[in-house]
Amino acid sequence: MEPVIELVSTGDEVLTGLITDTNAGWLSQLLLEQGWQVRRRFTVGDDKADLVELFEQRSHQADIVIVNGGLGPTSDDISAEAMADAAGVTLELNQHWLEVMQQKYASRNRDMPKSNSKQAMLPQGAELVDNPVGTACGFAVKLNRATFFFTPGVPSELKVMMNDEILPRLRQQLGDNGRSQVRRFFLFGLSESGLSDKLDALTWPAGIALGYRANLPTIEVKLIIDTANAEAIAQAEAQLLAQVGTHLIARDNMDFTASLGPMLVDKDLMIFEDASGGRLTDTISTITREFEGHYLAGLPDEAEELAHWLQKSARPLTLAIGAAGPKGVPVALKTQTGCYVQTLQMHFRDPLSQRRLLAFTALDMLRRHLMNETVMIDYDILPCSERLTLPA
Amino acid sequence: MEPVIELVSTGDEVLTGLITDTNAGWLSQLLLEQGWQVRRRFTVGDDKADLVELFEQRSHQADIVIVNGGLGPTSDDISAEAMADAAGVTLELNQHWLEVMQQKYASRNRDMPKSNSKQAMLPQGAELVDNPVGTACGFAVKLNRATFFFTPGVPSELKVMMNDEILPRLRQQLGDNGRSQVRRFFLFGLSESGLSDKLDALTWPAGIALGYRANLPTIEVKLIIDTANAEAIAQAEAQLLAQVGTHLIARDNMDFTASLGPMLVDKDLMIFEDASGGRLTDTISTITREFEGHYLAGLPDEAEELAHWLQKSARPLTLAIGAAGPKGVPVALKTQTGCYVQTLQMHFRDPLSQRRLLAFTALDMLRRHLMNETVMIDYDILPCSERLTLPA
Repeated sequence: MEPVIELVSTGDEVLTGLITDTNAGWLSQLLLEQGWQVRRRFTVGDDKADLVELFEQRSHQADIVIVNGGLGPTSDDISAEAMADAAGVTLELNQHWLEVMQQKYASRNRDMPKSNSKQAMLPQGAELVDNPVGTACGFAVKLNRATFFFTPGVPSELKVMMNDEILPRLRQQLGDNGRSQVRRFFLFGLSESGLSDKLDALTWPAGIALGYRANLPTIEVKLIIDTANAEAIAQAEAQLLAQVGTHLIARDNMDFTASLGPMLVDKDLMIFEDASGGRLTDTISTITREFEGHYLAGLPDEAEELAHWLQKSARPLTLAIGAAGPKGVPVALKTQTGCYVQTLQMHFRDPLSQRRLLAFTALDMLRRHLMNETVMIDYDILPCSERLTLPA
Repeated sequence: MEPVIELVSTGDEVLTGLITDTNAGWLSQLLLEQGWQVRRRFTVGDDKADLVELFEQRSHQADIVIVNGGLGPTSDDISAEAMADAAGVTLELNQHWLEVMQQKYASRNRDMPKSNSKQAMLPQGAELVDNPVGTACGFAVKLNRATFFFTPGVPSELKVMMNDEILPRLRQQLGDNGRSQVRRFFLFGLSESGLSDKLDALTWPAGIALGYRANLPTIEVKLIIDTANAEAIAQAEAQLLAQVGTHLIARDNMDFTASLGPMLVDKDLMIFEDASGGRLTDTISTITREFEGHYLAGLPDEAEELAHWLQKSARPLTLAIGAAGPKGVPVALKTQTGCYVQTLQMHFRDPLSQRRLLAFTALDMLRRHLMNETVMIDYDILPCSERLTLPA
């Protein structure tokens, strides 16, 4: 029986949209990776009556409620107070946490402000949940059917507390009830609909389902695994990999750019870009600092012309994104053995998506070269009007 | 009496965190700009029983419920069906919308797929809400206390429908009950706590409250106005402007970069950057294409050295961000009359925030120069270890 897991986001800033609630999405993903799917999410402001009403109501319908935010020292942080009211208990001082906070301040040679002592006031009977990186401790409260976990709104504190403290408790409490396993594959250049048509037409082993997510410029494909049959899992993965081929750029939590950095050492890479603004340089500088990048308005807008322009460069490795011309934007890679150019047609109206896609395509050509794969291939999402390979 | 307005986001992709729910934040902000504050938000998956239960429950507690998503042609789009169940009615064909859809397809010389006819099935008694840019029509249903508005999940369609169709209906239904007016001011270089200490110490007219939001590298200050007294409003605004001075970079929905573009025509701007990767070039290329940008590893990391390096540039207007050195990162502007350099200490651990802040500071120096303001000022958020002004 699948447990009912719910999330509650608190705070006026989240409710009014002044802050985008990235914590809720992160929590949902974290739980999904463990095999638990969140059933409902709620967002309420810093209003005690609304919080009390919600906690009371959810306590009858959920098994697990993770509450995020409202644990700070100021007067609008009222999560503990609201939970105490909902449970019909009072707040009481947790002497241990008070001392932990005092030590945190003392180690920085500062006195603890009086307002912080509020953060050690927990609902009677609550279990303290440690926060090694902040003054807002978490806590757990059982009310009716539900166990409530209270977590801090600061993303870095939330992450440590979830991973180190709350996930182990959830594993213990929920066991393997209703858990599924997820493997993720990140692809570049395929369209979501084209890919799903291909994959959905295949037969997949029992207990294995597919999931998709487009997050331009990449697509994520998931194998959602509800079986312990290792052979079936291996077969499904092999079948997927055979279909996606060299479009696969990363797996699970691996960042493919991390593996490119070491490959670019001493390569004397040079970048020229026009239509992409500074996006390619900005992207590559997060991978390595060992290159030069130039934004110039007025680069060639035609493939052959861009290739000739590049042939003049004495550098061993040069990437270039030309200007937008009638046939599209030429994107080129010159190595010591050849000069590869393809002209790509852009179908996105918003300029930021165009820049991202151009930069990612150039980066993919570089990645393919470094990994000894074919430098230019068909991208479903990016029609190519022209493709040239010339001597270096 | 303030109306109770609630939002419901639907869809497994949103619930599981695969998609970040930007629509909910956008809706909250849009309503806030009109003076209505959303009271609660709910997120549920593509599960009919969960949707029916939620609609039934909210119908007793809210005045307005805006439901987003689940209006598409596929089998997991079940918002209309769930609303019909909650209201105890059946779905019926809206002949008008069926014809509108058929015309939309005919104008593109295509036959309408059969699955689309589902999008014309509305709960009995529902009022059609036009969607001029898609095949998912919206609709409104009154149940118990609440009026439900159903909107498409595609952000561009949602935006048109809200602005053109639903806001006029809300204004008519809710009148001025509980509406407040909001004026927004965007600032650069001040810290949120320093600013709030200063502003909160002042006396503000009755019916006017302050709100803050840090969104690095800028801060937004809001005047939340619950009075019709024009004199009080003008006085509050003047008092705010006097405090923030030239830290003000934009107001309300104005994008300050839009006004810089025309000022940079024919200025022959040249950019060099090191510690900021390609971020400054990438940012400025969204404002104008008339400049050159260069990322070079190994620029000077010391203010005087960077100034001397820049003095060699023959260009009339040059911006440079040096390398990170022991005193910080030197950021320089050379104009035809002088060379201004300040070394800034970076206190952010994550590299992306550092780059953004460096690029924004350089851009602010350029903005100040173009607007004939003092080029270098104290930034609360960015301690300066050294400041030089040399001849050009």
